[in-house]
Amino acid sequence: MPPFIETLIAAVRRAGNPVLVGLDPRADSLPKGLLTAPNDPAAVARAFQNFCCGVIDAVATRVAAVKPQAAFFEQYGPPGMTALHEVIQYARQKELLVILDGKRNDIGTTAAAYAEAYLGRESVWGADALTVSPYLGDDSLEPFVTRAKESGSGIFVLVKTSNPGGGAFQDYAGAEGPLYRRVAACVERLARETESMHRYGAVGAVVGATYPEQLAELRSAMPQAWLLIPGFGAQGGSAEDVAAGFDSEGLGAIVNNSRGLIFAHAREPYRSRFGASRWQDAVAAATADMIDQLAAHTPAGQLRPH
Amino acid sequence: MPPFIETLIAAVRRAGNPVLVGLDPRADSLPKGLLTAPNDPAAVARAFQNFCCGVIDAVATRVAAVKPQAAFFEQYGPPGMTALHEVIQYARQKELLVILDGKRNDIGTTAAAYAEAYLGRESVWGADALTVSPYLGDDSLEPFVTRAKESGSGIFVLVKTSNPGGGAFQDYAGAEGPLYRRVAACVERLARETESMHRYGAVGAVVGATYPEQLAELRSAMPQAWLLIPGFGAQGGSAEDVAAGFDSEGLGAIVNNSRGLIFAHAREPYRSRFGASRWQDAVAAATADMIDQLAAHTPAGQLRPH
Repeated sequence: MPPFIETLIAAVRRAGNPVLVGLDPRADSLPKGLLTAPNDPAAVARAFQNFCCGVIDAVATRVAAVKPQAAFFEQYGPPGMTALHEVIQYARQKELLVILDGKRNDIGTTAAAYAEAYLGRESVWGADALTVSPYLGDDSLEPFVTRAKESGSGIFVLVKTSNPGGGAFQDYAGAEGPLYRRVAACVERLARETESMHRYGAVGAVVGATYPEQLAELRSAMPQAWLLIPGFGAQGGSAEDVAAGFDSEGLGAIVNNSRGLIFAHAREPYRSRFGASRWQDAVAAATADMIDQLAAHTPAGQLRPH
Repeated sequence: MPPFIETLIAAVRRAGNPVLVGLDPRADSLPKGLLTAPNDPAAVARAFQNFCCGVIDAVATRVAAVKPQAAFFEQYGPPGMTALHEVIQYARQKELLVILDGKRNDIGTTAAAYAEAYLGRESVWGADALTVSPYLGDDSLEPFVTRAKESGSGIFVLVKTSNPGGGAFQDYAGAEGPLYRRVAACVERLARETESMHRYGAVGAVVGATYPEQLAELRSAMPQAWLLIPGFGAQGGSAEDVAAGFDSEGLGAIVNNSRGLIFAHAREPYRSRFGASRWQDAVAAATADMIDQLAAHTPAGQLRPH
């Protein structure tokens, strides 16, 4: 198994951009006609699967990776979980990397069970990477790091999230500054320990686009941690806001957009251009526009084919 | 729907003890004969379901609640999730409360999706309560609180976990003392906001048995938050260690034991007394012994029928 970060860098270079497409299906936002029985969890789960596979078809030749959000699948019970599994398999068939957004964690052998469940293409869920919450401590991350190394997969640890109240605990100030800085120091250590031939390691960090100053600070504090940046688009983050997340080669970060891409058919200018029936064209156009914005305003422009 | 805490208190009083049985199935610890095809995820999932339902049969008349650990079911993919669903339904049929240990969280509408997925008997998973991680901030807890109130369910927020490295971030010291104290202040506020006719609210806290001093401190800091105390038994916590978690009436806490109860057949004195074939008797005996220990050494002794 090549290390995750090698696979990720190769995929980002091949795509020529750092866009991560978030798969956050919601029953009330699906294009008309995809969901006929909204009160039947199994029918919603099937609609989610069809929708997400349709999104994957629209973006597979354009981006490096997708990020399914586990919560929206879990919301529909066991059929939802089956749909999540199918979506992951489909993305892999289309040669996309899959970063599962589950924000899992626990202690000891329970953390190891999560790691074994999700990490690596040989695992039962088959994700290439998983988002992980750090509250349980540095030892809770170790089973994920071990499994990531064994299986050529990666983790992204929550450091600074994009929500308005994220600072309530993450900004709690002690001797080393805000808590997120202490978490960042732990992530950087783990990134260094899992370094492959590039500077980056198998352990990355989630840092929101909505706090550009902290993003710049955290890029410096974690030179070996690849960043997963949520909060672009619907949450208010712009291309300028995420520019500081990249290194001088345009590497070091992937930028997620979920609603802004997958439900583009419902907002302008895509609604007028495509309408609900051509929703996949709307996804493709919105993705192309995001690629252009990042290329114009961030170092990731260097990744574009000339 | 009666508030969760009313249901919990009634169940604890009816059982006459605060024991919470943790359902942490592991393929390599199952009693012989339950698992015949360990390499087939669907077979393991079925064995987990049979085993957990057998544990439920052994404890249903003795305790108030069970705590399935999501990770061990997730480890076996969609069939594992189906087994988890069946185990939750079976526990409810047996009139046990179900606290799902998933340590979930996210932001905004994604947190709301987790809340809707898991909280309340009308939800698709049908748990009475869910464990929730606080790193994402106080606003990330709000959707869970709203849903808990609507559905007569509860949440237990991680405050101080039982693992050796739990302090790495939880003990990070700032102006209000260690971070866990700030999280505790947030939990106490939410408990007060969801107070029902008893002093306790729908929002409780996870505080590990392995830090008895902090347990006492946190009981004082959160007088309205019911405590879920892990770490008893295999992790080293004793009845004396958890005594400070209770109020003067013997209420205010439930104490979890997983491996020490469900795999009692594999350890003395139960192994000699019962052997693997009578593993359910071993579960029942270990549960009775834990009930006795808590009655002898904690205020929970007052709950026993006279």
